Amino acid sequence: MSILIKNGYVIYGDNLEVIKADVYIENNEISKIGKDLNVGADYVIDAKGKVVSPGFINAHTHSPMVILRGLADDLALMEWLQNHIWPIERKLKPDHIYWGALLGVLEMIKSGTTTFVDMYFHMEEVAKAVEKAGMRAYLSYGMADLGNEEKRNTEIKETLKLLEFIENLDSPRVEFLFGPHAPYTCSPELLGWVREKADETGKKITIHISETRDEVRQIKEKYGKTPVEFLDELGFLKDDVVAAHGVWLSDKEVKILAEKGVTIVHNPASNMKLASGVMPLKKLLDAGVNVALGTDGAASNNNLDMVEEMKLTSLLHKVHDLDPTVADAGTIFKIASQNGAKALNLNAGVIKEGALADIVIFDFNKPHLRPITNVISHIVYSANGSDIETTIIDGKIVMLDREVLTVDEEKVLDKVQEIIDELR
Amino acid sequence: MSILIKNGYVIYGDNLEVIKADVYIENNEISKIGKDLNVGADYVIDAKGKVVSPGFINAHTHSPMVILRGLADDLALMEWLQNHIWPIERKLKPDHIYWGALLGVLEMIKSGTTTFVDMYFHMEEVAKAVEKAGMRAYLSYGMADLGNEEKRNTEIKETLKLLEFIENLDSPRVEFLFGPHAPYTCSPELLGWVREKADETGKKITIHISETRDEVRQIKEKYGKTPVEFLDELGFLKDDVVAAHGVWLSDKEVKILAEKGVTIVHNPASNMKLASGVMPLKKLLDAGVNVALGTDGAASNNNLDMVEEMKLTSLLHKVHDLDPTVADAGTIFKIASQNGAKALNLNAGVIKEGALADIVIFDFNKPHLRPITNVISHIVYSANGSDIETTIIDGKIVMLDREVLTVDEEKVLDKVQEIIDELR
Ligand SMILES: [Zn+2]
Ligand SMILES: [Zn+2]
Repeated sequence: MSILIKNGYVIYGDNLEVIKADVYIENNEISKIGKDLNVGADYVIDAKGKVVSPGFINAHTHSPMVILRGLADDLALMEWLQNHIWPIERKLKPDHIYWGALLGVLEMIKSGTTTFVDMYFHMEEVAKAVEKAGMRAYLSYGMADLGNEEKRNTEIKETLKLLEFIENLDSPRVEFLFGPHAPYTCSPELLGWVREKADETGKKITIHISETRDEVRQIKEKYGKTPVEFLDELGFLKDDVVAAHGVWLSDKEVKILAEKGVTIVHNPASNMKLASGVMPLKKLLDAGVNVALGTDGAASNNNLDMVEEMKLTSLLHKVHDLDPTVADAGTIFKIASQNGAKALNLNAGVIKEGALADIVIFDFNKPHLRPITNVISHIVYSANGSDIETTIIDGKIVMLDREVLTVDEEKVLDKVQEIIDELR
Repeated sequence: MSILIKNGYVIYGDNLEVIKADVYIENNEISKIGKDLNVGADYVIDAKGKVVSPGFINAHTHSPMVILRGLADDLALMEWLQNHIWPIERKLKPDHIYWGALLGVLEMIKSGTTTFVDMYFHMEEVAKAVEKAGMRAYLSYGMADLGNEEKRNTEIKETLKLLEFIENLDSPRVEFLFGPHAPYTCSPELLGWVREKADETGKKITIHISETRDEVRQIKEKYGKTPVEFLDELGFLKDDVVAAHGVWLSDKEVKILAEKGVTIVHNPASNMKLASGVMPLKKLLDAGVNVALGTDGAASNNNLDMVEEMKLTSLLHKVHDLDPTVADAGTIFKIASQNGAKALNLNAGVIKEGALADIVIFDFNKPHLRPITNVISHIVYSANGSDIETTIIDGKIVMLDREVLTVDEEKVLDKVQEIIDELR
């Protein structure tokens, strides 16, 4: 299978150089980039007036939570969780998770995401949805033992079950990772088990760290140290850790994260909507920490649109630092693409020869994307996910002219409506 | 001319009640709302699974600046203005302004705005573009005399020329308003002239107030008082004043604005991108100030998408106040619709019998707007302007199924590209 994308503006290489060129894809790889490529292809896409971009990497979400979209907003965190989110989550059966994940994956494909990192439960269903849709994903079962040994054993069993399921699935696009929920919900024993198993299997780890001031206070009270120090002293922190949030971090913690090669996944919409706080982006970048971008779950965002998330990121940090030069468009674009790939050791997030063919095409024939002056600026500051016209994942066309080819969209929309009407 | 919109979810009345109903439009007014209306109509729109919403009111922008979109980002304010924006602006001819305004109006129609308040130069061209596109707008020539009497006379002449032009245009959708740029660029004499003329003509006034800390400092140095106190002592502040920004306001200034009935137009994207600061939204609302919403010009946003702007507004204030309950979805929706109408004494911004038929239809048959649980939440937190399918202004269908019927879109896109390629 080969695809030739002709005549587009191509966002080329690590430095986001915008060139007019053709892109040739063979199997699941980008094999050639250049002007007027003279090659035969099974499928030719004319991208005149359009922009050929690396697909975005949503490095932190809970995909099935799209089912809960709009159910509860504008509430204090604990009221939101205890009276609205948790009661519905308790009712979610595997079948609900399957359709929810499919809706989430559909939304991501339609807004330019080609890879995501997920944490939830009944994750075998998410794996099936990802496989069906032709998406790329790293999937974790969210473990929380709250110090209870029996619960810990259940969580470990669930995790190993998911690991086995994904290994048996044997998909080039579906990967397992460990998902201890957070330092304040996981015992040192559970975190220790995760580290050991990660070393043994070579699988990555995702975890929430320091999302709220309150959890930082809890950890300090319990262990007499900050969350990052606590994890570091456990030997937990290595460059296979993809940690969400990192809103409340001391300078010392930033230094540790940089030294250990931990990735911090920024989730600005969620942190803003839940009023968690503002992650110290500039400090993390200056220290050399790899920062990636995520949308978090739809219950706290409320969409999974990485293009919109880029604008939020830049604007939030400019006003927070009172400095219009921070979080420039290029930096933010990299955070949403190549930094996510780096976190996952994935040969993607960039358009160059030899990289995986995870590519999206923006339609720039729209009033809000004209005149075409600075392509990266237009994507970060003016576009949104609906401007994505075509999505290619692992060398396959998954969406063409906004039609997703792998999933019956109408059926999914109807199905999730039925589910939520029945559950609430 | 009559239009019947059938089977939609209608956002009804001042309290944003969501009801399943039909909406019947006769001439330029909403004449009936109810279930299964049994009326004949010239045109019937089936809105099943869609949302019938008041159109949004962009209460502060500089529409022709879409021409400068993406030309300069991530720069300090003065560097941005002096080395990038002003040099290009000096080259703009009336014809450029016409095509720029047409692009801006196209973008607004396509993202659900039905009325906007504008300030720029060569405004007769903007009036022509608005009239052609079937848009509703309040247009001002931006006056700045910098204390120079000769310049003052030129500015007054330009303003009176625009007033006369718009009166002669005699359009039901195009209104004039006075546009003194700001207290730091306009002399007390010019501001006094504006107040007198506004009283005499009954036309409204729009002005920038306290966008940056620096201009507040300048005013204090020059006049020994804050900008709002300065304007108040001039007798300038009345309920016909629509003031943009209000980022840096003392408690005393907030009190004065409330007493005088001044509208403050919030421009969060611009204030964030230029790192101007965070307008005290809660304080203004608590004091009873009418707060409306604007996008500002595309050079500092970089789009004119009011739907996106709503999300930014809510999220910014939640994280800034560290309180997830502030700036709830309903409040923000009103700020973007009925509060703008109130600022302009316009019988719009709400769907009810007798109001002007300025209506937009959101297509909710999309993954990121499902399941349908809370319509207002979905619009504020998950939608963007591209979800608008149909736009009705003054009882006329201006966009249907995303096709703008009044303007040749492709021609406009090509034209502005030519212009910017020639100018820069
Ligand atoms: Zn999370
Ligand atoms: Zn302005």
